[in-house]
Amino acid sequence: MIYLDHAAATPVSDKVFKAMKPYFTTDFYNPSAAYLPAKKVSADYEAAKATIAHAIGAKASDLVITAGATEANNLAFTATKARILYLETEHDSVRRVAEARGGKPIRVLPNGLVDLKDLRERITDETELISIALVNNELGTIQPLSEVSRIIREVKLDRMKRGIRKQLLLHSDASQALTLLDINVARLGVDLLTLNAAKVYGPKGVGALYVSHDARLHPLTVGGGQENGLRSGTENVPGVIGFAKAVELAKDHLNGNRKKYAAWRKILLSELKDYELINKKHALDSFVVICYDGIDAERLVFLLEECGVYVATGAACAASKGVRSHVLAAIGLSESQIAGSLRLTLGETNTMEQVREAAEMINDVVKKEKKFRAKRSMAFI
Amino acid sequence: MIYLDHAAATPVSDKVFKAMKPYFTTDFYNPSAAYLPAKKVSADYEAAKATIAHAIGAKASDLVITAGATEANNLAFTATKARILYLETEHDSVRRVAEARGGKPIRVLPNGLVDLKDLRERITDETELISIALVNNELGTIQPLSEVSRIIREVKLDRMKRGIRKQLLLHSDASQALTLLDINVARLGVDLLTLNAAKVYGPKGVGALYVSHDARLHPLTVGGGQENGLRSGTENVPGVIGFAKAVELAKDHLNGNRKKYAAWRKILLSELKDYELINKKHALDSFVVICYDGIDAERLVFLLEECGVYVATGAACAASKGVRSHVLAAIGLSESQIAGSLRLTLGETNTMEQVREAAEMINDVVKKEKKFRAKRSMAFI
Repeated sequence: MIYLDHAAATPVSDKVFKAMKPYFTTDFYNPSAAYLPAKKVSADYEAAKATIAHAIGAKASDLVITAGATEANNLAFTATKARILYLETEHDSVRRVAEARGGKPIRVLPNGLVDLKDLRERITDETELISIALVNNELGTIQPLSEVSRIIREVKLDRMKRGIRKQLLLHSDASQALTLLDINVARLGVDLLTLNAAKVYGPKGVGALYVSHDARLHPLTVGGGQENGLRSGTENVPGVIGFAKAVELAKDHLNGNRKKYAAWRKILLSELKDYELINKKHALDSFVVICYDGIDAERLVFLLEECGVYVATGAACAASKGVRSHVLAAIGLSESQIAGSLRLTLGETNTMEQVREAAEMINDVVKKEKKFRAKRSMAFI
Repeated sequence: MIYLDHAAATPVSDKVFKAMKPYFTTDFYNPSAAYLPAKKVSADYEAAKATIAHAIGAKASDLVITAGATEANNLAFTATKARILYLETEHDSVRRVAEARGGKPIRVLPNGLVDLKDLRERITDETELISIALVNNELGTIQPLSEVSRIIREVKLDRMKRGIRKQLLLHSDASQALTLLDINVARLGVDLLTLNAAKVYGPKGVGALYVSHDARLHPLTVGGGQENGLRSGTENVPGVIGFAKAVELAKDHLNGNRKKYAAWRKILLSELKDYELINKKHALDSFVVICYDGIDAERLVFLLEECGVYVATGAACAASKGVRSHVLAAIGLSESQIAGSLRLTLGETNTMEQVREAAEMINDVVKKEKKFRAKRSMAFI
């Protein structure tokens, strides 16, 4: 089995699983209970939040734990009822909320980066929130958030001069970024940042939203008042303990993994044949998006599955619904290029051997598919 | 260690943990991915949902998986923007949402049961949703939901005769009920039913909302469109697999547990001394709520903690915030009765020996506390 779809899901690593286990079985107490063992669980939960927060240069009290990135993204948008801007290549959990609130898309350049000129032009005096993912989930494109926040600072300064008192917040979905980027909220200049345990070898169903002091959110759910009243419900203790462990491990292996994936990416790019590289620049090293124009990538996925190689065509969610990728369309790919695109995402389940093997198998499968297509088109003549 | 707070949290049972494990580590795929192992995970997830649904006489497609009961309760209330009625003894996750939407409380009788006369009188032609928990989380009171739904049917019939076309839905939070009650949505006559894995020896952070065909909900979060578009976000596969196993086990042991807890309750009631029983009738056998008028139950909790006995004063969430229980106030208890109330909730971590021991220790602690108080008041004379 060669799994090359780490952007869609990651396994819970052994160390993470081990860290979580006692909180399922022995330290299962409700953190709100009054007796000592429950208070210990509550303290462990807070310490885990502090670990996650620390990894992005924040404090535990800045984080709202959620059931995943989708909820965190939705929660981020409660910061305003006014004008929203979002990058046109955002994940559905940002796009759909933004659209529902009358948000307007910001264009990307053909290289996948945010068009800063377009961004600047679209910001009006009414704009209150801008959402741009740190790393795109289909291309791995790393957005220049500090440049975006520089523009935002300029706008704010200009507004101040003109006596306009309106917030202008920067939200970023960093779901795909934690494994390979050293994230610091102050350096990035973000007010709201989404994190996702499930993409960083932590458990599914756990995420977090970093919230700066400038942002005022409204809870999506009310009740017991947990998470400073922003997200009620008994805390998912094992989930958050696992999330913290996963974040810690990611930080520890950041540099090593970066080098490793860069080397593996090179191997893929040199050993694969007759492909077109889509995410040439500005992408996370773990993302290799390639295109076989004229070939149906969905058939490649099935053929590769038979060889035990698991890859994706577009974002997993979009793919299963039979919708063409809006991301690949946004960077200017043609219909047939989009249809022929594969996303390979490297990760901890892989070895260099596997990467070489995968390249070989992809080459084989593409060759076969081309032959098959040639034969079929001959038959029609 | 004698844990008598199973209404606040339950440990994940061994069988549940074992069922979950592979979905963390080996079967970790994103259910939306296109290759076979991911499709198998997706099928397992759907099968787990079917198991949960089956336990309440419903189909998998009737369930929306959530991050717990609080989210499920919040989601249930999206069924209407019109008039809501809720039982005054409801959990905060119902009360707060209902209040925020202008909902009006229905009274309970001194025995904790819904005042059906008050309910009938409060239903107007504008009422669209009524929320009454199947089992109260502080008293264990089992509400006569089928009688409530009979009244609702009468109202609907009357509305129909008068040409009033307005929905009238019954929602019930059944979080505390799954371990000891045989729940059937049709028999209960509910349109919306909240379930909670964490109260039934399943994992924290997982719940479900049963939604009948009559109810039209609006998602709290949008994105990838999972759960029929009602709750986006990558599915918490291990959580739901664990939830299903927990529900299955609960069903298997329903009768045995019912007998066991009934016997243990009798032991507690006969061996405890000088207490007043609060939930005399209509309560789940696992709930024993007692009162020592004039004594501070919070001190009892700490003294018992020193003996390794863990009990609660009120609902765990309310207790930690230092708020007096609105439930005990609603059934007419005085301030000093409320302050002297303990909630003991029996569960699978207990043995008959433990129950006897706990009774003895509670008696000891109460005796000591009474002596201490007598001494102190002497000192002031």
